[in-house]
Amino acid sequence: MPPEKGKFVHTVFFWLKNKDSEADRQKLYEGLTKLSQIELIETAYVGVPAATNRDVIDRSYDFSITFVFPDPETQDAYQVHPDHLKFVEEYGHLWERVVVYDAIGPDLLRE
Amino acid sequence: MPPEKGKFVHTVFFWLKNKDSEADRQKLYEGLTKLSQIELIETAYVGVPAATNRDVIDRSYDFSITFVFPDPETQDAYQVHPDHLKFVEEYGHLWERVVVYDAIGPDLLRE
Repeated sequence: MPPEKGKFVHTVFFWLKNKDSEADRQKLYEGLTKLSQIELIETAYVGVPAATNRDVIDRSYDFSITFVFPDPETQDAYQVHPDHLKFVEEYGHLWERVVVYDAIGPDLLRE
Repeated sequence: MPPEKGKFVHTVFFWLKNKDSEADRQKLYEGLTKLSQIELIETAYVGVPAATNRDVIDRSYDFSITFVFPDPETQDAYQVHPDHLKFVEEYGHLWERVVVYDAIGPDLLRE
């Protein structure tokens, strides 16, 4: 099928501070599951590295989220949503690093 | 809404070899658009960096794809699909680097 046009895809990878703590891992997963319920998100995926393993695959992260928004404005609103701010406040101590990729369909891009 | 359970999310970032070539950019976009039509893909997003710009955001890539599969087996089949192999053959010279993140809902993970 043709690609979903013009969606805003917000992808975040999380690296846990304490990789060996099952409690921390469980806690962050709970936090991400809660986070993904924010009603501004159109489609939410919470993931961990799959079993695939090739040279080009980065499997070093502990969790990923892929949140799809209808447009950039809705993602902006998500960034300042109280439940998002609360998530960062409550769970931010669990990760040592996050990397964010915000991608948008080229048809929606305004330079 | 609750996160989509158990989907296989295949995310790839592409860095063009010739960043200044509008022709190469257009060509890779066409290739990715074609690639995203492979019928094994449940939902496909083709993207470029959005306008968002914070410290944690990586905007260095030129294109991203986020392809959602129902399960790991379907993604395995996609990897060897003739149209995927043809894409790599026809367009592989355009990028200097790709990074792949394969993520799966923890509920589907088998250790």
